[in-house]
Amino acid sequence: MDEPVLLTGAGGHVGRTVLNGLREKYDWRLLFHSQPARDPEFPYWIGEVENHEDVRPAMKNVGAVIHLAGDPRPQAPWESVLSNNIDGTHTMYEIAVEEGVDKFIFASSNHAVGAAETDERTPDMYREHDDFRLTGEEFPRPGNKYGISKATGEIIGRYFYDKHDISVCNIRIGNLNEDHPPIDYERGQAMWLSPRDCAHIHECALEADYGFEIVYGISDNDRKYYSLERAKEVLGYGPKDNSAEWDGDDRLAGDAGAVNVD
Amino acid sequence: MDEPVLLTGAGGHVGRTVLNGLREKYDWRLLFHSQPARDPEFPYWIGEVENHEDVRPAMKNVGAVIHLAGDPRPQAPWESVLSNNIDGTHTMYEIAVEEGVDKFIFASSNHAVGAAETDERTPDMYREHDDFRLTGEEFPRPGNKYGISKATGEIIGRYFYDKHDISVCNIRIGNLNEDHPPIDYERGQAMWLSPRDCAHIHECALEADYGFEIVYGISDNDRKYYSLERAKEVLGYGPKDNSAEWDGDDRLAGDAGAVNVD
Repeated sequence: MDEPVLLTGAGGHVGRTVLNGLREKYDWRLLFHSQPARDPEFPYWIGEVENHEDVRPAMKNVGAVIHLAGDPRPQAPWESVLSNNIDGTHTMYEIAVEEGVDKFIFASSNHAVGAAETDERTPDMYREHDDFRLTGEEFPRPGNKYGISKATGEIIGRYFYDKHDISVCNIRIGNLNEDHPPIDYERGQAMWLSPRDCAHIHECALEADYGFEIVYGISDNDRKYYSLERAKEVLGYGPKDNSAEWDGDDRLAGDAGAVNVD
Repeated sequence: MDEPVLLTGAGGHVGRTVLNGLREKYDWRLLFHSQPARDPEFPYWIGEVENHEDVRPAMKNVGAVIHLAGDPRPQAPWESVLSNNIDGTHTMYEIAVEEGVDKFIFASSNHAVGAAETDERTPDMYREHDDFRLTGEEFPRPGNKYGISKATGEIIGRYFYDKHDISVCNIRIGNLNEDHPPIDYERGQAMWLSPRDCAHIHECALEADYGFEIVYGISDNDRKYYSLERAKEVLGYGPKDNSAEWDGDDRLAGDAGAVNVD
């Protein structure tokens, strides 16, 4: 990707992680929801993603978009996700297509399929060698309103791909935790996406060729109930981390020169 | 279904057809978007389905909902379907759950999968014995903004079913044409839903036991690319009409006592 890349939600957790990991590799354009504490080293704008006039200037001459902006709260109320997430994602796609953007990477979420975690399956499903593993081809099963908005964002992307031939990659992001995965919490270990794997999967999505994809964004955890096959096959995703390599002492299990991560 | 049934979009084409076919069978409650020309013979309300205060009185003591209201235009602009269809369907589910409604029947649409009709497949896919037949388990592929709103309505229903255990049946309605199917128009013949089959599939959805379903609502046309298996199996749908029984003279093919339908 030689052309500039627009990153929305640049001030959020995933946004900062992507930018930290790939700072040197792309000519970034940044869209923030509010003024960042420090002045960014790339051209930036401040605005609401559901407003065409806020988005359009940031989209000029851009080759790809990583769209992370939106209300990130799993318990966000309907009115907020309807506007910030559903309408915002529609505006982003509409202007991306108008401006001739080639590639759109959408931060979907594990919450788009959160209701697949049922009482009957939990917690077995988070364990190793569990037979039940989601591939991304399933009909969505959101577990909250936020998840409804993420599944809808995927469908909006499907429409723009079918209609306007923009390449679309939806990454159903797990749990991004700094430093190490949660200890003694099976779901957290199954869901873990390490910071470097987070940056890497977004780089893969910027570089690979595809039409419309839904992939899961987690590290290569022993415990998992999301398949990584599609991300590996289509995007060339090669995760380096695995929550099983961390034990209860916050150390890399089996690593003699233990790293203190706190 | 012994309790009252609330019908929204009661003044629309599908609404009138359902009511005409099932008038005697249920204790109807009707929600109109605007004052009907003739005073209905059932209790009725006028309002916007996205407004909680408009919906709540109509939902009192109701056992089931048939939710047809919304902007029905395939080319409706985003702002309209976002409000009338997406937000409106969310409001309907929210109040249905609050009021303890058991069953929610949602008028989805063939447009939720309209982009599955691609240049490569058309018009072969509308012909008899075509191998390509949608079952309802596919990830949605809307062909317009209206289709996005219908697919989103299905996902909203999935959330409310998973979270609140309300029974949900999504009917991806084909083309409801009065009297006879379109002549010399293969897609129209594949998509045809006759008025009596339209009333019947809604009755089936009111009477059957299910959790969450997505079915196709077309007549038993020789030409079709939607499977009716699920509707027959789960709902007990037994369509009586078939667009192939009509020839180019607007007559029932092979019917000696030909009916003039115009």
